[in-house]
Amino acid sequence: MRLVTHAHPSGDRAAAVVASSDGDRLVDLDGLSLVEILQDETALAAARLRVEHAAGSPETLPRLSDTRLLPPVRPGKILCLGYNYRGHVAEGADPTADDPAFPDVFVKTPNVVNAPGDPVVLPVASTNVDYEGEIAVVIGRRAHRVPLVSALDYVAGYALFNDVSDRDWQGRSSQWELGKCFDGFGPLGPELITADEIPDPQDLLLEVERDGVVTVSQSTATMIFPMAFIVHYLSQVMTLEPGDIISTGTPQKLPQALNDHRPLGPGDAVTIRVAGLGELTTTFTAPTDTERTPA
Amino acid sequence: MRLVTHAHPSGDRAAAVVASSDGDRLVDLDGLSLVEILQDETALAAARLRVEHAAGSPETLPRLSDTRLLPPVRPGKILCLGYNYRGHVAEGADPTADDPAFPDVFVKTPNVVNAPGDPVVLPVASTNVDYEGEIAVVIGRRAHRVPLVSALDYVAGYALFNDVSDRDWQGRSSQWELGKCFDGFGPLGPELITADEIPDPQDLLLEVERDGVVTVSQSTATMIFPMAFIVHYLSQVMTLEPGDIISTGTPQKLPQALNDHRPLGPGDAVTIRVAGLGELTTTFTAPTDTERTPA
Repeated sequence: MRLVTHAHPSGDRAAAVVASSDGDRLVDLDGLSLVEILQDETALAAARLRVEHAAGSPETLPRLSDTRLLPPVRPGKILCLGYNYRGHVAEGADPTADDPAFPDVFVKTPNVVNAPGDPVVLPVASTNVDYEGEIAVVIGRRAHRVPLVSALDYVAGYALFNDVSDRDWQGRSSQWELGKCFDGFGPLGPELITADEIPDPQDLLLEVERDGVVTVSQSTATMIFPMAFIVHYLSQVMTLEPGDIISTGTPQKLPQALNDHRPLGPGDAVTIRVAGLGELTTTFTAPTDTERTPA
Repeated sequence: MRLVTHAHPSGDRAAAVVASSDGDRLVDLDGLSLVEILQDETALAAARLRVEHAAGSPETLPRLSDTRLLPPVRPGKILCLGYNYRGHVAEGADPTADDPAFPDVFVKTPNVVNAPGDPVVLPVASTNVDYEGEIAVVIGRRAHRVPLVSALDYVAGYALFNDVSDRDWQGRSSQWELGKCFDGFGPLGPELITADEIPDPQDLLLEVERDGVVTVSQSTATMIFPMAFIVHYLSQVMTLEPGDIISTGTPQKLPQALNDHRPLGPGDAVTIRVAGLGELTTTFTAPTDTERTPA
């Protein structure tokens, strides 16, 4: 299923998305939140039935394009991986030669989460903003010390995530968090795609486009720590809760994009695209005059 | 005021603590949560009136010792400082010589928060657990780009915090988070002391005792980045919300304690003590048999 959360006069609503001949439509899901549905087998089964039923005559349903999408979930924990895609190596070289022994994990705070259609307002204090196109794993069931073989059973689905980062703040001290935790530095969505739609999460092509130029293009097959391992590993340390997300790292930019890179400025746009997971486009805008007043 | 959150048959309750001739007593605060009270001037004033009134004849009130204390707040964000107390320097040397240019900030996830009287269960995966006795600033009002001069106006009060850390996991990668984010690795409390009770937060003696031996004893006067600066600085990056906490770092262990240090094991106890903020004692226990099953 394709699942979203959207703004509604009566409060945030979860919905499923079904295609119709003239654009996507919304199937309402009983006023439960997406996190409530994901962790409840009965609610999930009811949602599937409703989607099947609606798929027969979707034309009477509300249009997806008429609503404002919100982040599909509001994660209590946002765990992120540093270096987790192998770089390009010369022919014949061992691609695993530079693999670290353990994942490098950091945390983004909940204030970063940004609605998928909303711009990221460049903070007044920011000086060197960059993007990182990533696939986020969304936890569906509480996971505490889960075995590797069943780790993906705890994953409700996947969403796209832009790990927006201020490189100057990130480099001010040994820990990266302040460069990672500016308000809005985590566009998430637009949809949560349930895990059953993704036969092999380690066989997805992740592409990022900046201002119309492809800057990242690499398969999840080149991940150092696959998603199942990450869930297993993190669950040894912390209990993962429904709605928590783990963003699984970004591949390196392509050589030309690395060479041409300049910090994001007002008017720039970044699109993350993965077949089956849709695409997430984020525009970057200047701070308002109110924001510019001295602090 | 001395404020607590405690377990009650009808749900978590906020209360103020008043001294009586035979021990501390609880003054109930209308069923609001502590975070609701802290950000509402009227509720805060009403609480103060109630405490004044109760102080006249506290003997009829419920005893603090009869209830189970919970963490005073459930922070959405737990921001922590690395190295933030100056070390001991030779006579005549400049104590600021090793000051970093910027605070080193990392994040603990909400699963770490532990009730002040509860033991920390040593995780099965942990191998080298240490304590860090700290003073946590509790945010009372939403803080976004607040000036340095008024930064403490956004602080509701102070609590004690043990930044429990697994040194092996902390050292596995460049980012410390996994060593910091085990379930329960953040005992908080026992009380939130409102800011008006603390005339100068940069003049507090922080002491830590491990198994009866004082291992840390240093004044907040030796902080590199004072609390007002930290609130100001962080608010340039992220909007701080009522109930968020900023743990302001730990002083280095005394030379003998550094020398004698061994990882915490079952039965060990750590007490953090600051005059005016009370004391927080945490015992460490072995994992249960259920926890020991392979994962």
